[in-house]
Amino acid sequence: MLSNIRIILINTFHPGNIGSAARAMKTMGLSDLCLVTPQRYPDPDADAMAAGAMDVLTNARIFSSLDEAIADCSLVIGTSARSRNSTSNRPMLEADASAEALLKESVNCPVALVFGQETMGLTNEELEKCHFHACIDANPDYPVLNVASAIQILCYELRKASVHFSRTTIQPQAQPQADSYPLQEELERFYQHLEQTLTDIDFIIQQHPGKVMKRLRRLFNRARPESKELNMLRGILSSAQKASGVKGNTND
Amino acid sequence: MLSNIRIILINTFHPGNIGSAARAMKTMGLSDLCLVTPQRYPDPDADAMAAGAMDVLTNARIFSSLDEAIADCSLVIGTSARSRNSTSNRPMLEADASAEALLKESVNCPVALVFGQETMGLTNEELEKCHFHACIDANPDYPVLNVASAIQILCYELRKASVHFSRTTIQPQAQPQADSYPLQEELERFYQHLEQTLTDIDFIIQQHPGKVMKRLRRLFNRARPESKELNMLRGILSSAQKASGVKGNTND
Repeated sequence: MLSNIRIILINTFHPGNIGSAARAMKTMGLSDLCLVTPQRYPDPDADAMAAGAMDVLTNARIFSSLDEAIADCSLVIGTSARSRNSTSNRPMLEADASAEALLKESVNCPVALVFGQETMGLTNEELEKCHFHACIDANPDYPVLNVASAIQILCYELRKASVHFSRTTIQPQAQPQADSYPLQEELERFYQHLEQTLTDIDFIIQQHPGKVMKRLRRLFNRARPESKELNMLRGILSSAQKASGVKGNTND
Repeated sequence: MLSNIRIILINTFHPGNIGSAARAMKTMGLSDLCLVTPQRYPDPDADAMAAGAMDVLTNARIFSSLDEAIADCSLVIGTSARSRNSTSNRPMLEADASAEALLKESVNCPVALVFGQETMGLTNEELEKCHFHACIDANPDYPVLNVASAIQILCYELRKASVHFSRTTIQPQAQPQADSYPLQEELERFYQHLEQTLTDIDFIIQQHPGKVMKRLRRLFNRARPESKELNMLRGILSSAQKASGVKGNTND
């Protein structure tokens, strides 16, 4: 449950980042923001960056230590810039695996995702308190994500984990209107009209008609014309027939 | 190849977002930033937000139109805030599916991911030029991602896709042929040829040409014609022109 997932910012230096965090959280459906010893808060810069997420910002809870902020959590994951090659023997999780772990556990109990101070990140002492370290895979030559960006990516992965994410293309066919697509017989009349027109304008002659029509059918099947579009195409065919001196034949 | 994936920002209002885009790109291993009519650039705010990604920022290319920026691209994906429930019948892809599609195609040819102006997003005219629309799943009550956040998420998904592909064996036959899809400029010549032909056969006359062409662009973008298919369509147009007494004009 996203409502059981707590985002904790420790010792944040720029209040703008607190506002950006609130906005990033709300866009992904999270709401529980906790601030440990923020250096400037409340602050107009935070309000400005929060934009439409002022509710998340104003409901943020302030704590004087990480211990207090995570006291009631069963799982705590700290974000770390340390590369997976680091000598640290603590369990590192990719961003998506971290999100999965937090989401599973959040069904039963509050869980926390912790972000350190902008330049320093989490201290070793703070990392000791985390069950896992979340690591966002980044360009080894410049892995320096802005803290707001890191928060946005992890909140995005949390949302992905929370909705059963479909990796398939969302095709318009998924929700077709009752009358928006032509019946197969209308489609067939269109193909007859198309073949007739291609013959009238002498395109189908030197080539094997079957092959041309097969390729055109494949093309139009991919496009899946709507009824309105099919009518427009029929109109174009009739115009081409008229222009070629043949009486426009709509095959109806 | 991440190096073949172009990030295009159109008409950006806040130069800080251009800098943030450069930083987001570099952290995820992208480098090809293109700016279409930025409102303030270069600008110290852009430099400040770019942080360690000044190289990406200073190498950014400026264009006066989207057409120029995507002329040599075989796949163009536009980002859209439109929900999946929108009545738009254009193919929407989730962020990760968009990244996969761009990465696969980038092996053969430059591809582009396009972001619109901060408040307005991409115009309908700009969206017409895109094969797919990338949609970041977000909180329906507040889906308002900052443009820098949207760029960070999509660059993150592009990196994830590139790591995934480098791990999995890519079958050569699974890859489209280098010449299987037309470049955007070839597609634009086709649309010019189509509009000219529709005028020659007197189809475009009683109707508003812009609307007809807009509907045809949408139809053909959904079909995404291959180069062979586009050549066949060009041949049909020339035949229709000849039949209507106009000398076939291939616009080349």
